[in-house]
Amino acid sequence: MIRTHDAGTLRASDAGTTVTLAGWVARRRDHGGVIFVDLRDASGVVQVVFREEDAHALRNEFCVKVVGEVSARPAGNENPDLATGAIEVVASELIVLSEAAPLPLPVDDTVTASDDLRLKYRYLDLRRSGPAKALRLRSRANQIAREVLHARDFNEIETPTLTRSTPEGARDFLVPVRLQPGTWYALPQSPQLFKQLLMVAGMERYYQIARCYRDEDFRADRQPEFTQLDIEMSFVTQDDVIALGEEIVSRLWSELADYQVQLPIPRITWTDAMNRYGSDKPDLRYGVELVELTDYLRGTAFRVFAGAIDAGGYVGAVVMPGGASQTRKELDGWQDWAKARGARGLAYVVLDSETGEPKGPVAKNLSPEHLAGLADQVGAKPGDAVFFAAAAERREAQELLGAARIEIAKRANLIDESTWAFCWVVDAPMFEKTDDGGWTAVHHPFTSPNEEWEARFEEAPDQALAYAYDIVVNGNEIGGGSVRIHRADVQSRVFDLLGITPEEAADKFGFLLEAFKYGPPPHAGIALGWDRTCMLLSGNDSIREVIAFPKTRGGFDPLTTAPTPITAQQRLEAGIDAKPKATAGTPGTDGQAVPVLHSN
Amino acid sequence: MIRTHDAGTLRASDAGTTVTLAGWVARRRDHGGVIFVDLRDASGVVQVVFREEDAHALRNEFCVKVVGEVSARPAGNENPDLATGAIEVVASELIVLSEAAPLPLPVDDTVTASDDLRLKYRYLDLRRSGPAKALRLRSRANQIAREVLHARDFNEIETPTLTRSTPEGARDFLVPVRLQPGTWYALPQSPQLFKQLLMVAGMERYYQIARCYRDEDFRADRQPEFTQLDIEMSFVTQDDVIALGEEIVSRLWSELADYQVQLPIPRITWTDAMNRYGSDKPDLRYGVELVELTDYLRGTAFRVFAGAIDAGGYVGAVVMPGGASQTRKELDGWQDWAKARGARGLAYVVLDSETGEPKGPVAKNLSPEHLAGLADQVGAKPGDAVFFAAAAERREAQELLGAARIEIAKRANLIDESTWAFCWVVDAPMFEKTDDGGWTAVHHPFTSPNEEWEARFEEAPDQALAYAYDIVVNGNEIGGGSVRIHRADVQSRVFDLLGITPEEAADKFGFLLEAFKYGPPPHAGIALGWDRTCMLLSGNDSIREVIAFPKTRGGFDPLTTAPTPITAQQRLEAGIDAKPKATAGTPGTDGQAVPVLHSN
Repeated sequence: MIRTHDAGTLRASDAGTTVTLAGWVARRRDHGGVIFVDLRDASGVVQVVFREEDAHALRNEFCVKVVGEVSARPAGNENPDLATGAIEVVASELIVLSEAAPLPLPVDDTVTASDDLRLKYRYLDLRRSGPAKALRLRSRANQIAREVLHARDFNEIETPTLTRSTPEGARDFLVPVRLQPGTWYALPQSPQLFKQLLMVAGMERYYQIARCYRDEDFRADRQPEFTQLDIEMSFVTQDDVIALGEEIVSRLWSELADYQVQLPIPRITWTDAMNRYGSDKPDLRYGVELVELTDYLRGTAFRVFAGAIDAGGYVGAVVMPGGASQTRKELDGWQDWAKARGARGLAYVVLDSETGEPKGPVAKNLSPEHLAGLADQVGAKPGDAVFFAAAAERREAQELLGAARIEIAKRANLIDESTWAFCWVVDAPMFEKTDDGGWTAVHHPFTSPNEEWEARFEEAPDQALAYAYDIVVNGNEIGGGSVRIHRADVQSRVFDLLGITPEEAADKFGFLLEAFKYGPPPHAGIALGWDRTCMLLSGNDSIREVIAFPKTRGGFDPLTTAPTPITAQQRLEAGIDAKPKATAGTPGTDGQAVPVLHSN
Repeated sequence: MIRTHDAGTLRASDAGTTVTLAGWVARRRDHGGVIFVDLRDASGVVQVVFREEDAHALRNEFCVKVVGEVSARPAGNENPDLATGAIEVVASELIVLSEAAPLPLPVDDTVTASDDLRLKYRYLDLRRSGPAKALRLRSRANQIAREVLHARDFNEIETPTLTRSTPEGARDFLVPVRLQPGTWYALPQSPQLFKQLLMVAGMERYYQIARCYRDEDFRADRQPEFTQLDIEMSFVTQDDVIALGEEIVSRLWSELADYQVQLPIPRITWTDAMNRYGSDKPDLRYGVELVELTDYLRGTAFRVFAGAIDAGGYVGAVVMPGGASQTRKELDGWQDWAKARGARGLAYVVLDSETGEPKGPVAKNLSPEHLAGLADQVGAKPGDAVFFAAAAERREAQELLGAARIEIAKRANLIDESTWAFCWVVDAPMFEKTDDGGWTAVHHPFTSPNEEWEARFEEAPDQALAYAYDIVVNGNEIGGGSVRIHRADVQSRVFDLLGITPEEAADKFGFLLEAFKYGPPPHAGIALGWDRTCMLLSGNDSIREVIAFPKTRGGFDPLTTAPTPITAQQRLEAGIDAKPKATAGTPGTDGQAVPVLHSN
């Protein structure tokens, strides 16, 4: 080691020790003949005192080696805010290891910079304490998860990232193969198929902190490559996977966010989550629950509500405490908010803060009886506002109210930012209707129906429930999984319902179905979105903060300028425009090997 | 859990306990009215006894759940070779969880099958104890390495796998980017540039078990994707990295191969390794060292030797103990062996086992004086054979002798297969001559010259030595690394010597060089080839054995049939044939961001 001590570890008890330090010049202050330098390394910062003539050339972010003696600071000069604040190092020797040009991005925790600038100079950005801390936290999160999993006999197994492309994998990244011109690999969106194969293989307990890929629009906070903590277990039930997930989450939050998760984490059914919170990832840090008014308002003359009710739909409401005191402009703002979400508007009444009398545009349209009982029905008090949604599709109206609920919590300051509210959302629906009147799998077609529905999901596909579970914290889904189908008869009934013919099934999932012929065990799994989990743990609001070298919205990397055009020569060598050899053919529809390929 | 106990954990002390087991039918034996089944799960095997009528339908690899009572086996029926051999489980209930079709690959440790068949049915192959054990060992190896690294405050940091393509990266896999049609990512051959950036970022200690990619001919035992344990440290010297490497290796071998590595591991210079063993990854399990004869044979009339000596080249020999007893056919076989390696042949003399008299074709060409002193000179005894190599290029002749040395050890049975011989090969050359008379970097152009050469490598580039080190065990290079250049002046002198203009340097390495302007710390690193390391630890001779789903030689996966042709629709959607937008332009030559791209 070039140094004898880490700068941030020096204490009063080290006074008198000669130390060699190495790090960066974080700040420099000149005091007539003496220069004070904050020397920073990975462990922290210490004050170093130089004679003016020795250190006049030092500038910020020079990398230096310093020999000196640890000395108690003169009385009154201690800095109690700094771990090393009781001492300073009086330098006897200085070696500049490397110089720094003027900085395009100040290494200063108090300076804000654009994302593009931060990412272009990410190596300077990461010298700041916040960004560095986020990466260190992520490393520790990996370690904690692995401790839990290894203690439970899980095997860490790497699965391929150069895999088979399927025409259905519309968001697959594709990779041309030089040695088999005209053929392509795909980068996997998840290790799902491989982890299920590992269960068929009898590995029983698998995990991987797995890189996954999705070539899609990076709305909000998506990256083309992302990471999940991927887990699969054999011979288990939903409860076993949930218990494991709880152990991981409680260890993470306890050690990294200083929060004791109350176990077991509450479970809420998907239907309850939608009915009460208008969301399949409800934020339970606050109440503000939805109230269904479909029956209450039956017979109303108000066209908007009556239309929904007559269509077999839904009318509901959510209460904004104190919402009656909003200005007309604020109330109009809700209409804009709703329109921005694609709704036609957001009907409301406000309850007079003295009399409780319902007022506002909707009040005029409701009967005196409906108005009279409304406050009781929705649990509103004088001074509150009541927002309504109605639609022929129950879910559509509930989701609007769910979004309004979140917005109410923000505007009315109802969110306790210091707490963490976890829940499992269970009993998710198996199927949803497609536009052409068929059915599609809500999760994937290997998700198992629950015990109650296994024998009869065909009777009411819209009501059939799956052994599928999501873990949600503060309204963020941080993971999800399911019990998988391991019985051939159940799988084939699911394919039938989805309108997938045996030929199509073989083409899409051939090698997995082939594997399932040979004694697949009951198995289940879960994947935690690792970027988001670490983002929440580190108190950040973007996953970029917990990624060493993230990309910007278009998948662009300001640091390396990837992606770039390629040359004609690269194109040629990579076989991008080669036709597949006629003899190589297309892969069989049953996942069979093509002899001419595998004999290469 | 579906089971109450793991099958392989049951012991005599469990007798009388009612257990629920779940696993696979490994073997079935019918004994008039009673059926014995070996039930296998991840923990091992236990014998289960069924009444004939309950279990007649069971076939191999059915997945079953069994309730039964643990019972001591009848006296004389114990199986001491089996951990559970003192007991059996008398079944009271059997549930078939899933059936198995007739097996294309028997799940039987004693059956050998072709690699293609094994990989196509890898999920059956992995039910066998050997393959399963190799994957479990690898998981444990990961865990051990991480324990060492976390104890030393390393951070596990993920680096991007969708990175910048450079025209020079001829073996890069390329990835078209749907959202930026006409532009491409490259999959990284290693995280080298990113880990150096993390050092500039002040992270100080980085590691990652990193997936790497190389699109090249899969000779021997290569995979298109492979894994390395990748490490980088700041403020360290070569000795620090070597000490860390030794701790990892000694922990791995101690725990997984039951072998105590003697520390410190011996170091041998690259030049010594070539001179003594004819290899930069010498197998030190046996002697059989090369002997240089250039001076000894100076003046010989034998044209083959004289030609090499006159050209300033090298003549050397290696002794095969007992080699004189080889038949004429065996000695001729050496000529074929040499020709298969591209040499013209392998000159030799044999020393008569009684008289020690040198015989054979070369003996006729050497002078009596040269013959008389030969045995002493090369350390041969009567009955030995002496093989010669001569070439104008020292390295060429040494490498032939080095290969002969390995072959001698095999044929003469000199290898102690029970031991592990480790060494570090240090002081590697920095540069080697290119065909056009210039110089190229042996490692990469960021490798630091050692202290002795830092100020003057230009004086004798062919002799200049680097702080570069490889770790070798039993003739296998399992890792390597170097101290990196952190001084701008040294880097620029290296580029000058390599004939890389500042413009070219900026184009190739722009973003790294830009980063190096801002106080880069001294840093060094190492990467262990993780597939090969785990292969050796598990006693296998192919890296495929420690990869869950490996590919065959042509990069083909017999299980999924990847890679495959893609459809015209996929081609269109992925933007493979799109021209880059004129406004997007090509990336700047200095690694600068292109505004129109990063504002997307």
